Amino acid sequence: MYKTKAYSAASETSGLAADTIARRDPTDHDVKIEILYCGICHSDLHSVRNEWSHMVPTVYPIVPGHEIVGRVTQVGSAVTKYKTGDLAAIGCMVESDGTCPNCQAGFEQFCPNLTLTFNSTDKYLGGVTYGGYSDSIVVNERFVLRVPSNLELSGVAPLLCAGITTYSPLRHWGVTKGKKVGVVGLGGLGHMGVKFAHAFGAQVVVFTTSPDKTEDALRLGADEVVISRNADEMQKQAGSFDFILDTVSAQHDINAYLNLLRLDGNITLVGAPSNPLEVSAFSLIMGRRSLSGSNIGGIAETQEMLDFCGENNITADVEVIPIQKVNEAYERLLKSDVKYRFCIDMASLK
Amino acid sequence: MYKTKAYSAASETSGLAADTIARRDPTDHDVKIEILYCGICHSDLHSVRNEWSHMVPTVYPIVPGHEIVGRVTQVGSAVTKYKTGDLAAIGCMVESDGTCPNCQAGFEQFCPNLTLTFNSTDKYLGGVTYGGYSDSIVVNERFVLRVPSNLELSGVAPLLCAGITTYSPLRHWGVTKGKKVGVVGLGGLGHMGVKFAHAFGAQVVVFTTSPDKTEDALRLGADEVVISRNADEMQKQAGSFDFILDTVSAQHDINAYLNLLRLDGNITLVGAPSNPLEVSAFSLIMGRRSLSGSNIGGIAETQEMLDFCGENNITADVEVIPIQKVNEAYERLLKSDVKYRFCIDMASLK
Repeated sequence: MYKTKAYSAASETSGLAADTIARRDPTDHDVKIEILYCGICHSDLHSVRNEWSHMVPTVYPIVPGHEIVGRVTQVGSAVTKYKTGDLAAIGCMVESDGTCPNCQAGFEQFCPNLTLTFNSTDKYLGGVTYGGYSDSIVVNERFVLRVPSNLELSGVAPLLCAGITTYSPLRHWGVTKGKKVGVVGLGGLGHMGVKFAHAFGAQVVVFTTSPDKTEDALRLGADEVVISRNADEMQKQAGSFDFILDTVSAQHDINAYLNLLRLDGNITLVGAPSNPLEVSAFSLIMGRRSLSGSNIGGIAETQEMLDFCGENNITADVEVIPIQKVNEAYERLLKSDVKYRFCIDMASLK
Repeated sequence: MYKTKAYSAASETSGLAADTIARRDPTDHDVKIEILYCGICHSDLHSVRNEWSHMVPTVYPIVPGHEIVGRVTQVGSAVTKYKTGDLAAIGCMVESDGTCPNCQAGFEQFCPNLTLTFNSTDKYLGGVTYGGYSDSIVVNERFVLRVPSNLELSGVAPLLCAGITTYSPLRHWGVTKGKKVGVVGLGGLGHMGVKFAHAFGAQVVVFTTSPDKTEDALRLGADEVVISRNADEMQKQAGSFDFILDTVSAQHDINAYLNLLRLDGNITLVGAPSNPLEVSAFSLIMGRRSLSGSNIGGIAETQEMLDFCGENNITADVEVIPIQKVNEAYERLLKSDVKYRFCIDMASLK
């Protein structure tokens, strides 16, 4: 066990502040990583403020952060895939049972015995796991990802959550050249969805409530931008989409988007509104449409996504901040005042 | 044009009564069919009482009925697939444009220029189409189905709507041996869903609010019956289903069923509650589950279903009534007091 610097929240109202936490010394299968960058995901904020208490109550102090990029500083004796000096990344998960049917199929994210990167039972030290707002982290090599050497690291960090969360459903639902794809919402998730859908060769339409995002959407790879509050513009798109990625976690009318799908079209939710969505059965029945959800991706697919990003030079658009600005960043996040992801430069923690 | 006997409703409150209606004389591509049996579908009742006025207002007088079985009495000069004396059937559709992408793909039910069997614009005679509560009907041979000769005709009639409505999604979502399939609701649709899922080799679980349907569900082919009001029984099934066919049009908690799906599981709605369903995004996101809808099936698939029924000796369980009892049957239908479909013996109309 060793001590390392971190930023933690002591309660749901305290905000984040400098702290010292304990990490385990690397076991035989562990990799120790010096954290260089950590992205700020909206779920960090939800957890810090205990807004998901009905599902996963927050244990305090909490150290959030699951978009982690760094460099290997130590490896256990049985580690084969990494060596000191390698770039490495950690996403939302740090352990799973490895034996359940979901793990066996490469869907560790749906393992019933999953350990999340933060606020999840720590089977080594007791208490809960601590995330990436920290100097270093120790993780079983099975959950460590390789990082392409050609990418700017601050823009890589958000790929570990925002990247895989959008890449996985676009792949699963067969988004390729010749398909028409909608992306609802242009935030941390949405801007990655646009980049991936464009890179896959699809015709990409961004739906946004903010006309001032039009120029940026086109720059990111959209072919067209629809202002979703304009009923006429929406009607023109009726029945034309193969797939729509819905990244919006605020309440919104999902039927307006279901009606834009063509035969066998799908909408996948990756944002999670806290109240139930009101879904018209007729919107689904007409056109054999489907509504589904998706949750990050498995480890193999996360690696595939990172490799794809390396080959296609894809990173997130980030605003890099020192960790001392994290509370301010949370306030700006609530106002969607970021293009498109905050990323903490962990050198500021030294 | 010729006159034929029918039962029609003059208004949404009048009930059905004997009437005489006009049909076109067969054109070159038409088949004239003497109707022997017509099933009573819940949508007959909705349309007669104008309960779907917000979508498709009922034009009076209305002659409902789209589960039609009979015998060919006349064919147009260009008809190649049928001859006088053949058994024949008509389902929910009597015409489509034949040229749209959906028609070309065999999904006539989603053609934007579809003509339904009743209460749909009649492009030959003006006014609206008249359905199967009638002595005879004239339909383009493209929408006429062949009927296997080994089946009891009264039990064949409901296959044209209740049969294809359940067969199509079970096929589309890959229900086969080794899959665990739920059927929610044991009515006209549900009892056919159980028969088909069982015939496809799946493990079939019926969800019902009525314990007294247990014995019948097992007789129809269910392997297990779950009383859906029993939370413990429901919990035991969590995460175990590949596919659930939801036939219930009353309001119900869809999330309780979404949580029963395993990874990539799907619920397909074939009943259409009139109010929106409240869907929890988390129920979809966890397990990459999907919720979809399905609407009858195309003509080719309807024929495939009828042929499958012939080969596997499958028919609907019907209570045969004379047409003079149709208003009484509607009242009993509202109380689910039928096992499992009323079928009108059209000889009673002579």
